[in-house]
Amino acid sequence: MADWKNLDQLDAYKALVDDSTRVDLRTVLAGEQGAQRVRRYALPMACGLSYNYGAKQVDDALLAKLANLAKEAQLSEKFAELYNGAMINTGEKRLVLHHLTRGQLGDPVVADGVDKREFYVEQQKRIADFAGKVHGGEITNAAGEDFTTVVQIGIGGSDLGPRAIYLALENWARAEGALKMEARFISNVDPDDAVNVLSTIDVAHSLFILVSKSGTTLETLTNEAFVKDALSKAGLDPADHMVAVTSQTSPLAQDSGYLEAFFMDDHIGGRYSSTSAVGGAVLSLAFGPEVFAQLLAGAAATDRISADADPLENPAMLDALIGVYERNILGYESTAVLPYSQALSRFPAHLQQADMESNGKSVNRFGEPVDYPTGPVLFGEPGTNGQHSFYQLLHQGKDIVPLQFVGFRENQGKTDVLIQGSYSQQKLGANVAAQIVAFACGKDDEDLNKKFDGGRPSSIIIGERLTPESMGALLAHFENKIMFQGFLWNLNSFDQEGVQLGKVLAKRVLAHETDGALAVYSEMLGI
Amino acid sequence: MADWKNLDQLDAYKALVDDSTRVDLRTVLAGEQGAQRVRRYALPMACGLSYNYGAKQVDDALLAKLANLAKEAQLSEKFAELYNGAMINTGEKRLVLHHLTRGQLGDPVVADGVDKREFYVEQQKRIADFAGKVHGGEITNAAGEDFTTVVQIGIGGSDLGPRAIYLALENWARAEGALKMEARFISNVDPDDAVNVLSTIDVAHSLFILVSKSGTTLETLTNEAFVKDALSKAGLDPADHMVAVTSQTSPLAQDSGYLEAFFMDDHIGGRYSSTSAVGGAVLSLAFGPEVFAQLLAGAAATDRISADADPLENPAMLDALIGVYERNILGYESTAVLPYSQALSRFPAHLQQADMESNGKSVNRFGEPVDYPTGPVLFGEPGTNGQHSFYQLLHQGKDIVPLQFVGFRENQGKTDVLIQGSYSQQKLGANVAAQIVAFACGKDDEDLNKKFDGGRPSSIIIGERLTPESMGALLAHFENKIMFQGFLWNLNSFDQEGVQLGKVLAKRVLAHETDGALAVYSEMLGI
Repeated sequence: MADWKNLDQLDAYKALVDDSTRVDLRTVLAGEQGAQRVRRYALPMACGLSYNYGAKQVDDALLAKLANLAKEAQLSEKFAELYNGAMINTGEKRLVLHHLTRGQLGDPVVADGVDKREFYVEQQKRIADFAGKVHGGEITNAAGEDFTTVVQIGIGGSDLGPRAIYLALENWARAEGALKMEARFISNVDPDDAVNVLSTIDVAHSLFILVSKSGTTLETLTNEAFVKDALSKAGLDPADHMVAVTSQTSPLAQDSGYLEAFFMDDHIGGRYSSTSAVGGAVLSLAFGPEVFAQLLAGAAATDRISADADPLENPAMLDALIGVYERNILGYESTAVLPYSQALSRFPAHLQQADMESNGKSVNRFGEPVDYPTGPVLFGEPGTNGQHSFYQLLHQGKDIVPLQFVGFRENQGKTDVLIQGSYSQQKLGANVAAQIVAFACGKDDEDLNKKFDGGRPSSIIIGERLTPESMGALLAHFENKIMFQGFLWNLNSFDQEGVQLGKVLAKRVLAHETDGALAVYSEMLGI
Repeated sequence: MADWKNLDQLDAYKALVDDSTRVDLRTVLAGEQGAQRVRRYALPMACGLSYNYGAKQVDDALLAKLANLAKEAQLSEKFAELYNGAMINTGEKRLVLHHLTRGQLGDPVVADGVDKREFYVEQQKRIADFAGKVHGGEITNAAGEDFTTVVQIGIGGSDLGPRAIYLALENWARAEGALKMEARFISNVDPDDAVNVLSTIDVAHSLFILVSKSGTTLETLTNEAFVKDALSKAGLDPADHMVAVTSQTSPLAQDSGYLEAFFMDDHIGGRYSSTSAVGGAVLSLAFGPEVFAQLLAGAAATDRISADADPLENPAMLDALIGVYERNILGYESTAVLPYSQALSRFPAHLQQADMESNGKSVNRFGEPVDYPTGPVLFGEPGTNGQHSFYQLLHQGKDIVPLQFVGFRENQGKTDVLIQGSYSQQKLGANVAAQIVAFACGKDDEDLNKKFDGGRPSSIIIGERLTPESMGALLAHFENKIMFQGFLWNLNSFDQEGVQLGKVLAKRVLAHETDGALAVYSEMLGI
């Protein structure tokens, strides 16, 4: 059994605190030594991706200290406990099994009376079978016509991850002739969200996936009612157009109002559910089950590498350790994710949830307050767009924000254009390379307004092309990084008690059971 | 002439630093006193909006101190200098004239040999005339068919603001029968951005707006080449489908390859250009010039209120002062913008640019380093989506993040649905009311994992409905807030030298004029 200790109880962490030496990126990245450093500080990841940390504020001595921390914090032992089925989500008394949706890393895990790997695979097969029938014209609308659009109705983890992945692969699928159905998403309880989607799709040829583990999420049930209303008004029977993704114990599971119900369980949290039926149904319908299987294979390959105990062979673990060093020793409060790929436009929003909901906490897994910083604020937009927006602050603002770049050598579409001697994809790559060096090395200038201090750390994940496999690998990298950081901070990264109070008060407002300030705000908002 | 001093040179600021009293939101928002406070700490804004700061960590004594700061920092004098045409953008030696696009707040401003208000109005009229001809079928494609889609090609300020406003009003326009053309946007140099848009529109019926002040922005010219290529391949003459928005001195201004060129100038920065021809062309084509005029009227109404010297009558000024108090006295490093309106989905991204590019700086307007925090990291997503994502950290994370909510009493679409006794719009409003109180007041619990510390400050802007007028008012509120904060920090908020170094290095990469680390990164990225 691993020993769960607070970060500041670990000798390896105390050694980091006591170490006042700081790596100066302007020095270590200069000249030929800098070139060698960039080549050396690169770790292979799954699916041809590579994690480069040449522009992070680390050196061999510090990496050794971080490796000591990994060892003393028992990161790989804790991951092994997790994938072997220990009750890691102590607050909710649940297992943490999202890795099992894409492979069997360790021992068979039996819960709820079944082998969970078998359970997840069975759901994948049921989804594949259903998607095959939809694509093959065996399941159609009442008029016998093909479904052309799939609409996911879900919020939070049932929305952000699947949506980010759909957008990441939509262009790829179009280029490869693999786009079987267009996908859309309804999430917000704001009625304008559903109105907007419903007014821009052909409902008669749309299949709707209702995603709610409990079958009671207010936003989702409300939006489902919206959709059913629209279907009825169009003279269609909602039951011909609806699928559910829910738990086996939810009221939706046996409801005849759905063509089919696919199952999730309590051992996979919303923000980790993209590789479960939550992402599986919509992505298999949009791209075909074989594409979803490629995504799972990419994630599984990352998971295997993440199980390595040596952080210098384990990119997710190393990324986690460097992030904790930046947060707890260097004192940086936020972090930016900057993919140089328009397809990854909503991946930062997914990571914002995955990271901030997992590790934005102030008590450890035993419910005791911790005295050190935990999860940072995370934000980001794709490059080069961000360069023309918030990069000003990143380069010259008062606070240092660590950066996580992502870049690819090839674009997804098979079209590119040669302007001023280079292709767009080359311009994109040139920009991210330039940014890394500009942030790290800066530039002197007598006019201080044009001076760049440099010393701003970044890492980059580089791949050949954003495909289902590399997308899966990227997703799992960040999931596992967040998990390792949660282990380091001694948090339970798998509950989210911080979202409860707002729900309780909102119900009270709707029941008109309020007084004081809450009553006044409610009145001002017209409730 | 105003006296431009650093924040820490002001006696009123020193008084704030010396004042160790802190307002405890849990106390001041409790009971009937809390209800009174929420009613009292509300300021009317333009177009029926209201700024409520009941849940900010201020009281009457502190507000008096902030008013002293506003006075000593000469905020209203500085704004008057700006709108009367002083050279406020000292670094680039330019005026700052975006307010003139929507009204004449002060003296006539003559620059470049013309009255600038007349110049901006003339461009609006030319755009209105052109849009009228497109909508009226007088300007068509070569086959004599109507244009149905307008595509903006631009990046940064030529993209984020116009895109955010288009998305903000698309649903409204659909509900009101005012959607004349669908708008799309191409920004990223990533070829997949253009490929994605071009593969999902009908190019034969699309009008493209190239937006580049200098006519030399690499991303934009590259994407224009992409578009022209697609038009040619479809057997169409690009000159029949292209419009330019540029400066009169740019090479594009006289180019016969455009149906028409509309003009911007050097006195309006990209991030403040939504109310210039940069936003005017695309929004007038999408919604009609009369709708764009309503947006301008809303912004003008806010500008007039922002000219009030009393911060307790001037919401943008008060918002700015409270923000500086939170950043410089309370030490909060980031801030979140959380609109409870799906239509405002990209408004936080626009504000992220507007704020972080304006005030993410470390030297004052005289090029001297400043010793205090300046612009914060800004991020946000619409509620209720964010509640199911990063709110965990906002409620229970180690750092306090000040929050800016926005909410409306009515939705844009004219459809809503009654579920469990309430409409969706009521659920939306109930949630934002609940969140404000949950963040501020918290909740005790013996289980510390379920305890909410509270004390987390927020303000809310409440309106009747998101319309062109209220959108304009909202836009100008934040523009003016950012301006006042720049005055307080003594920054030049209107240049962006921090984006230059990356551009220079990227050109070097594309010219293969690199060595050391930059050469290795470039090689890894396949350039």
